[in-house]
Amino acid sequence: MLPCLIEEVEVDPPKAGEVRIKILSSGLCGTDLHILEGKLRVPFPMILGHEGAGIVESTGDGVTSVKAGDKVLMFPLPECRECSSCLHPKGNLCLKENVLSPNGLMLDGTSRFTCRGKKIYHLYGTSTFAEYTVVHEIAVGKIDAAAPMDKVCIMSCEVPTGFGAVFNTAKVTPGSTCVVFGLGGIGSAVVMACKASGASRIIGVDINEEKFPRARALGVTDCLNPRKLKKPVQQVVVEMTGFGVDFAFEAVGLIDTMVASLESCHLSYGVCVIIGAAPSESQLSFDPMLILAGRTLKGGILGKYKTRDSIPKLVTDYLQKKINIDPLITHKLPFERINEAFELLQGGKCIRCVLSF
Amino acid sequence: MLPCLIEEVEVDPPKAGEVRIKILSSGLCGTDLHILEGKLRVPFPMILGHEGAGIVESTGDGVTSVKAGDKVLMFPLPECRECSSCLHPKGNLCLKENVLSPNGLMLDGTSRFTCRGKKIYHLYGTSTFAEYTVVHEIAVGKIDAAAPMDKVCIMSCEVPTGFGAVFNTAKVTPGSTCVVFGLGGIGSAVVMACKASGASRIIGVDINEEKFPRARALGVTDCLNPRKLKKPVQQVVVEMTGFGVDFAFEAVGLIDTMVASLESCHLSYGVCVIIGAAPSESQLSFDPMLILAGRTLKGGILGKYKTRDSIPKLVTDYLQKKINIDPLITHKLPFERINEAFELLQGGKCIRCVLSF
Repeated sequence: MLPCLIEEVEVDPPKAGEVRIKILSSGLCGTDLHILEGKLRVPFPMILGHEGAGIVESTGDGVTSVKAGDKVLMFPLPECRECSSCLHPKGNLCLKENVLSPNGLMLDGTSRFTCRGKKIYHLYGTSTFAEYTVVHEIAVGKIDAAAPMDKVCIMSCEVPTGFGAVFNTAKVTPGSTCVVFGLGGIGSAVVMACKASGASRIIGVDINEEKFPRARALGVTDCLNPRKLKKPVQQVVVEMTGFGVDFAFEAVGLIDTMVASLESCHLSYGVCVIIGAAPSESQLSFDPMLILAGRTLKGGILGKYKTRDSIPKLVTDYLQKKINIDPLITHKLPFERINEAFELLQGGKCIRCVLSF
Repeated sequence: MLPCLIEEVEVDPPKAGEVRIKILSSGLCGTDLHILEGKLRVPFPMILGHEGAGIVESTGDGVTSVKAGDKVLMFPLPECRECSSCLHPKGNLCLKENVLSPNGLMLDGTSRFTCRGKKIYHLYGTSTFAEYTVVHEIAVGKIDAAAPMDKVCIMSCEVPTGFGAVFNTAKVTPGSTCVVFGLGGIGSAVVMACKASGASRIIGVDINEEKFPRARALGVTDCLNPRKLKKPVQQVVVEMTGFGVDFAFEAVGLIDTMVASLESCHLSYGVCVIIGAAPSESQLSFDPMLILAGRTLKGGILGKYKTRDSIPKLVTDYLQKKINIDPLITHKLPFERINEAFELLQGGKCIRCVLSF
């Protein structure tokens, strides 16, 4: 794994439609780790980080939705409110930017970062592992001034991704059975949302048993370590539940666990939600009869939330104690110790570590 | 392709929970053809046919839902009303019988057919290409005495499979765009249901252009022959519709068209419904990012209808002219000419040919 280097970076002023933001806190997500591990292809050198909370420092021409001094979140998925995805009631993958094959540049094809005269790339239009960043207005959401920034930063990605997979994509029903593959940050958010939806049984699957006590505390009723089972984990899940679960969630990002999730679903009506991003150029391969029988395979970036419309409301819900996110943050470190944070995540020692400037 | 042979067969009386039925008419479905072509693995020698309409001749012990003289349809998917699929509001793949890997036998492990002393296998518990057949009560539905049997036989499989893919599985919305791969019997039923759902554009895809005039008459607005295109058909569909259709239907039963269907969907909210059964042991393989972006891949046997509960009501809807199925039947032949019917279907000359005794 590549280590992160801390460098002096020049951050250009915002151009038209852009916002320059002073970052206060940033969550460190599994996707950042996958990039450093080389599993997801992005251009380097790059400033990582995409779960940021900050304060608007300045705005470019034409920016109207936020102003200097506003507390904001910045989202790895924009919401332009004009494209066919944004206009569709069920769409959220804004087409203004190619978030699926990121080129590391702003919409005008340039970067706002330079380091010792060399261009540095952006990550998902956010790049929150910096004291200042520049983000398109369409990816910035003004949040309640009372929001604790060292907590709500994880509402830029982890919380909506996990909660939305349950509330928007799967629509978990009371009394249902669920299985969650991967008990890291996203998987933990999924578990909390399944419990909040009234699931009667939540099976947690991970190869790292150190995660089990925390997962049980969040709502997991049964823990499985696939490496300690004599049969494939999906077979065990099917046997535990009769004919498979109502809802399966893949929060790992590996082809094998995606297939295991699908096969864990009830053959006639099970719904499998893919949340993890598989390594670039992977192929998902399975017997089409799994679908023909009646299973559904779904996915959605950022939990299918329309980011600017919905996530500031989630922050308010948190402040009003309608939802809880506190258990998802297990570590806090000053930004300088970012490589320790990556080690904690890679070693499965934390759910989410928040870095603060 | 194997030809069908017409033989004298002994049909045993019904055992407990079984019904012996005099078949009046039977539709000839693409699945029957795929079996003769060797694409789907079933035991031989077998009596094919699974779209039957007939009259109850006698009933075994304990049968209460039908009696001798009743007009009935028999379904290739039973509904036991006791298993987890039947009891679940969204489930219909009754677990009483293994319809996904048929063994050609009744539930007690025996056959009711013999020919010159040799056991003959059943198809999907129906075997309607015979003057008499024996079916489990849980796969028999009593229908309105006024039903025209040479028409409603196709409501055992073709009509619910196509209509249900649209009404139950995809839930096509008014004003939406659809693409239908395969304009045979099922695809034609899908087209009719998309039109009835208020779809504003229905793109039909087939390699046999002889099917295009009929498809247009049923509601297809644009016809595409993939063999005459310079680009992959899914790319053409995406370009025709901006970023892909709202709903895609695969009514062919080939891996390539399944992937093309999925890729034809709008990346953020498109729904792809698999209807065709792929050749045994095929693997469906695609970039998991297709799902992660927001697409949904779904399927369902017999259009997700609970067969005994729903299909007799569909017959009544037809008699009351709430739905129309007449355009789906293009040919009628006496049963003796069954091999001509297979040739019509294989050559793409008919939508559905109904055989009558």
